[in-house]
Amino acid sequence: MTRTLSEKVHTGSAAAILDALAASPGEPVSGGELSRRLGLSRAAVWKRVALLKEAGFPIVSMRSHGYLLTGAEGVIVPSRIEALLKGKVIGGKIICLAETGSTNVDAARHAEEGAPEGTVVIADSQTAGKGRLGRRWESPPGRNLYCSVIIRPFIPPQKAPHLTFLSSLAICDAASDLLGLDLSLKWPNDVLAGGKKCAGLLNEMSAESDRIRYVILGIGVNLNMSTTDFPPDLRYPATSLSIESGRTIDRTLFAARLLDCLDRWYDRYRAQGFEPVRTAWMKRSWTVGKRVRVSHDGERGVTGVATGIDEMGALLVETSPGRIERILAGDVTISGGDA
Amino acid sequence: MTRTLSEKVHTGSAAAILDALAASPGEPVSGGELSRRLGLSRAAVWKRVALLKEAGFPIVSMRSHGYLLTGAEGVIVPSRIEALLKGKVIGGKIICLAETGSTNVDAARHAEEGAPEGTVVIADSQTAGKGRLGRRWESPPGRNLYCSVIIRPFIPPQKAPHLTFLSSLAICDAASDLLGLDLSLKWPNDVLAGGKKCAGLLNEMSAESDRIRYVILGIGVNLNMSTTDFPPDLRYPATSLSIESGRTIDRTLFAARLLDCLDRWYDRYRAQGFEPVRTAWMKRSWTVGKRVRVSHDGERGVTGVATGIDEMGALLVETSPGRIERILAGDVTISGGDA
Repeated sequence: MTRTLSEKVHTGSAAAILDALAASPGEPVSGGELSRRLGLSRAAVWKRVALLKEAGFPIVSMRSHGYLLTGAEGVIVPSRIEALLKGKVIGGKIICLAETGSTNVDAARHAEEGAPEGTVVIADSQTAGKGRLGRRWESPPGRNLYCSVIIRPFIPPQKAPHLTFLSSLAICDAASDLLGLDLSLKWPNDVLAGGKKCAGLLNEMSAESDRIRYVILGIGVNLNMSTTDFPPDLRYPATSLSIESGRTIDRTLFAARLLDCLDRWYDRYRAQGFEPVRTAWMKRSWTVGKRVRVSHDGERGVTGVATGIDEMGALLVETSPGRIERILAGDVTISGGDA
Repeated sequence: MTRTLSEKVHTGSAAAILDALAASPGEPVSGGELSRRLGLSRAAVWKRVALLKEAGFPIVSMRSHGYLLTGAEGVIVPSRIEALLKGKVIGGKIICLAETGSTNVDAARHAEEGAPEGTVVIADSQTAGKGRLGRRWESPPGRNLYCSVIIRPFIPPQKAPHLTFLSSLAICDAASDLLGLDLSLKWPNDVLAGGKKCAGLLNEMSAESDRIRYVILGIGVNLNMSTTDFPPDLRYPATSLSIESGRTIDRTLFAARLLDCLDRWYDRYRAQGFEPVRTAWMKRSWTVGKRVRVSHDGERGVTGVATGIDEMGALLVETSPGRIERILAGDVTISGGDA
């Protein structure tokens, strides 16, 4: 397996140094201390700190005081996530990167190379973050959570749409548990806070006719974005959990809780199938009961009242009294006030 | 793009030499003739012939007569396929290999590297031919057709099962046109001649939540296998189109006709959707009307009378009077004579 710079710093002693610095927020840790604790020479410590800096971690070398991780509370620390996790499958292996092109691309590469189910790739920033339908997902550093989870569910590929609902419910649960926020869900894969988009999901799949090889659950959650952080030309009204809750969010804590919630939903799905997922989604649905217009490139739009989702995760739209259309994919907009 | 030995011989002048030899069945072509026709030195001709031999093509060097492609009528020649093709999309680029691991793996690699829709990989033999559910597909040289077609349909991934039916209908049409054989289709993706399996299909997909990146249509057709060619431990009764028709089949001709038929079905599907495909499949169905048992690893089996396929390609099984179950994936066996 070829390792990027960012991956190198997250294996072995560079990762241990990062953990030690993160465990000492606002207080520098001396090179001597690191060297003693990790059984490394001073030169080896220095070399690994240089690697971490090169990978983008904000480490300041303070003459005669040692090394300080600036904004340590904001850095996502894998060993802290691992210590917090209670789940069995999701998060069995966590790879944290300072910067990458796209965590989905990284995770797919790991999956192709045989990474086990539950492997997670997290990045502080993405230079080519992906949204649905080839769109871009804004991924500035120091603010949000960008992560991709490898799963290998034993279901036929037609059921893959189920999996998006697991991610969105996990985000709702984590935001409710940690911040007391009540999020709602817009079909197929948007998560809304106060009616504005605060998270996006992009699943990618490799499958044969009747079995899934792997699915990458791509999850982007706006955590500490401020209103001025958003680009002015966004296609939709956007917000962050920090704006909605008025609190600065500990990204490591949120990441761990999210992965735990996802583990719970994945476990439930495997044991009981889609029905409990569908029921939970319906309760949080922003879409159901509204008059909507669903458009999809290349197909004519459908207008009507959204009545729910079916057992495959398709949106049900009543286009005229008694006539229900099943929508497999598309963009939903409110077409004329609440129904 | 990294090219295998087999791919090298199918680009440029090695391919031209193969074509020239194939165009002269039973008659050697002199090195001087090849050299003059292709504007190459005698040494360059010799070098390319050596490359072709190394790639597995049965070329004999006859002292003072030149080069003879033995069994030329049996070699699949890409330029002959291209000359025969009438279709617009499928077969726009054809890569013929003497031997490869799996044409599906090759095609997926080409697709990842941006190969256009309609690109086809054909191999004379496969060392790791793939069947459904991780099974092996017997792929001896000189006998059959193993090909993989890259398509990039503009449909949501849930509709991918539709595409298997296009391949199976194309095989039926080609066998009917060229050999007068009346094949039948077993859900989900077997093609039967006289009730025995004569072809197998394995589609592979790379997709995002609501768009397909590409699908590889993997097609294996038993053409000139004789009864003694089949391994004794096959899971199912197998046959070949040659056994069924009593004729030796020109593999190049069959490949070209198959790709043309596939092009026609793909074109019809894009223009009119699944309904005409579903109707044609139902007419050829071996499954519909029979009492079947459908098993799928990890899920309990379903028994009942197969009544058809629905608009997603799922098998409909009447398990008790008036109660229909939709089956997305599984293996079908006849459970107790015709219903």
